[in-house]
Amino acid sequence: MDRKDSDLNNGIKWIALDAMGGDNAPSAIVQGAVIAASKGVHVILVGDEKVIRKELGNSGGDCLKIFHASEQIEMGDSPVRAMKKKPDNSLARAFELARDKKASAVLSAGNSGAMLVAAKWVLGDTPGIFRPAIAIPMPTPKVESVLLDAGVSTDCSPENLYQFAVMGHFYAKKVLKKEKPSIALLNIGEEKSKGNVIVQRAHEFLSESKLNFIGNIEGNEIFDGKANVIVCDGFIGNIMLKTLEGTATVFFNAFREIVSSSGWKERLGAMLISGSVKSIRRKMDWREYGGALIMGVKGNVVITHGKSQASTIANALEFAQKLANANLAGSISEEIANNMKETAVITGASDDME
Amino acid sequence: MDRKDSDLNNGIKWIALDAMGGDNAPSAIVQGAVIAASKGVHVILVGDEKVIRKELGNSGGDCLKIFHASEQIEMGDSPVRAMKKKPDNSLARAFELARDKKASAVLSAGNSGAMLVAAKWVLGDTPGIFRPAIAIPMPTPKVESVLLDAGVSTDCSPENLYQFAVMGHFYAKKVLKKEKPSIALLNIGEEKSKGNVIVQRAHEFLSESKLNFIGNIEGNEIFDGKANVIVCDGFIGNIMLKTLEGTATVFFNAFREIVSSSGWKERLGAMLISGSVKSIRRKMDWREYGGALIMGVKGNVVITHGKSQASTIANALEFAQKLANANLAGSISEEIANNMKETAVITGASDDME
Repeated sequence: MDRKDSDLNNGIKWIALDAMGGDNAPSAIVQGAVIAASKGVHVILVGDEKVIRKELGNSGGDCLKIFHASEQIEMGDSPVRAMKKKPDNSLARAFELARDKKASAVLSAGNSGAMLVAAKWVLGDTPGIFRPAIAIPMPTPKVESVLLDAGVSTDCSPENLYQFAVMGHFYAKKVLKKEKPSIALLNIGEEKSKGNVIVQRAHEFLSESKLNFIGNIEGNEIFDGKANVIVCDGFIGNIMLKTLEGTATVFFNAFREIVSSSGWKERLGAMLISGSVKSIRRKMDWREYGGALIMGVKGNVVITHGKSQASTIANALEFAQKLANANLAGSISEEIANNMKETAVITGASDDME
Repeated sequence: MDRKDSDLNNGIKWIALDAMGGDNAPSAIVQGAVIAASKGVHVILVGDEKVIRKELGNSGGDCLKIFHASEQIEMGDSPVRAMKKKPDNSLARAFELARDKKASAVLSAGNSGAMLVAAKWVLGDTPGIFRPAIAIPMPTPKVESVLLDAGVSTDCSPENLYQFAVMGHFYAKKVLKKEKPSIALLNIGEEKSKGNVIVQRAHEFLSESKLNFIGNIEGNEIFDGKANVIVCDGFIGNIMLKTLEGTATVFFNAFREIVSSSGWKERLGAMLISGSVKSIRRKMDWREYGGALIMGVKGNVVITHGKSQASTIANALEFAQKLANANLAGSISEEIANNMKETAVITGASDDME
């Protein structure tokens, strides 16, 4: 595909996929694209054409295109420096396709810092939103819910947390199809006086807003399905999600140990339920859910774990397709702009917030 | 036992136990005391004598005493108000026994806020320590480690975090018997530039100190046993520990579901390994480890979960006995005072820190 090719759209929602980003790139990324394409997702593989063609082998078809980019950002690169020093990097090129309306969403498993920089530089911020947030679907058994911020904005003011709630509200409406999403603040107790000074003030903002704010929830309640939207700063969000991951790993390792080192009774038992245990593991792994959304930038930007395998990339591509079909970023930007422009005071959410 | 009785010690380390605090008080608390007493722990049950006697029934012996207190602080009480309005409450009386050297440690499963207030008011702060911290043993498979703060100081400066590391250092030396405890900062990445501004600055302090600081660890590494001491503020600590709890609960519920609702194969398998699963559960439950220590106050003050059953109370009493035998609070206070008094600048840990 030629870079000047402008015949990309034609009504089709293409997903620009950074083929070079991630621990298992390009192989797992390209394989993921092939899986998603077989399900009708339209993917532009952005990266070194020669390398991608080799990975593709005989795979191809109308749902797959390649957009050549000669450079790539490594996991360890400094985001800002890499973006400046490598103008033809696959990540920036993917975002340019979105900016130029040749793609409707961007997906990468690569350097998340660079992804954020590229999103802000190439696409720009959502007007009215002070800081971006990563919205991550939570593996709750009862209802679907989303947590934000999962790790991009580490020093947050009460205003920032309030805005995360607003973005989460629209996410839950559009993606989770909740009519009146319930919103909760991650805290260390139920009472509004609990927590640090930032969350105490955020609690006030949220209580005064038109959002369906249900109050604080604690770390052990995140799976209860009480809230469709769980709000916290990116420092807490990251530590919480990684604790969840670490706890699950400890458990599954202990299970594996039973299988390998106990008596015949335990070994047999473990064998008999290993399928069920695997399914629990899948249910508890948010990465299986298809990826996280960077909110607060102008575009549908999906990020997946650096360690993603082909199946996760395929899930994330399907998720990106869903966002693109719903024009999520566009409609959220519009709604936020319409509803927040008159609010010099951030707490004065307008009546038509809903 | 009469309140003026001053013949309590006689070389015996008594543990003052708030018999009226906790969701399952007084029944589970008194039963826990009976179990611990049967193992030689000396317990003073502080609370309503009539109620305690009824719970004790025929139990008794040289290891159990009662100290009457006519009032009690409820879980929902405002700590400061309750302490003022109920001067004869069991918690305050327990601390007074410690202050008056009639007990060598205090234990309660009750209102943790009130416990902190009582500790500060009755026993006083450790000189040189700006804020208290709760030190909790972490259920790590490889090495023993402690996390602080688990939830008492929610708004922390870099200096506070540094002091938590100092207290953790002494805890690990005295309780975990580590010669040169490794100390890590809970953060969202390995590099010193990661995290919010508070932890970035704390990282600098710790790097410049004489402590055995091994850098940042992430939420998924808390079980790896890399660090003997994990430092974070009380807001993060509480959310992290509760997330751990919530994740474990999700897993065990899923396991129970396998047992009850799947086919015969899974049911049989689950039955065969249920003993092993229970042992994993116990290993992952920090409450089984006997309780947490309030550090930064002058005394051995142990706090356990409000939902504690008799066995947990008994474990916590044994833990308190261990602390009392080692005169932990006393020796830590001394060491901290000796090593920090010349450090107007908090980072200037003296050469004889070790």
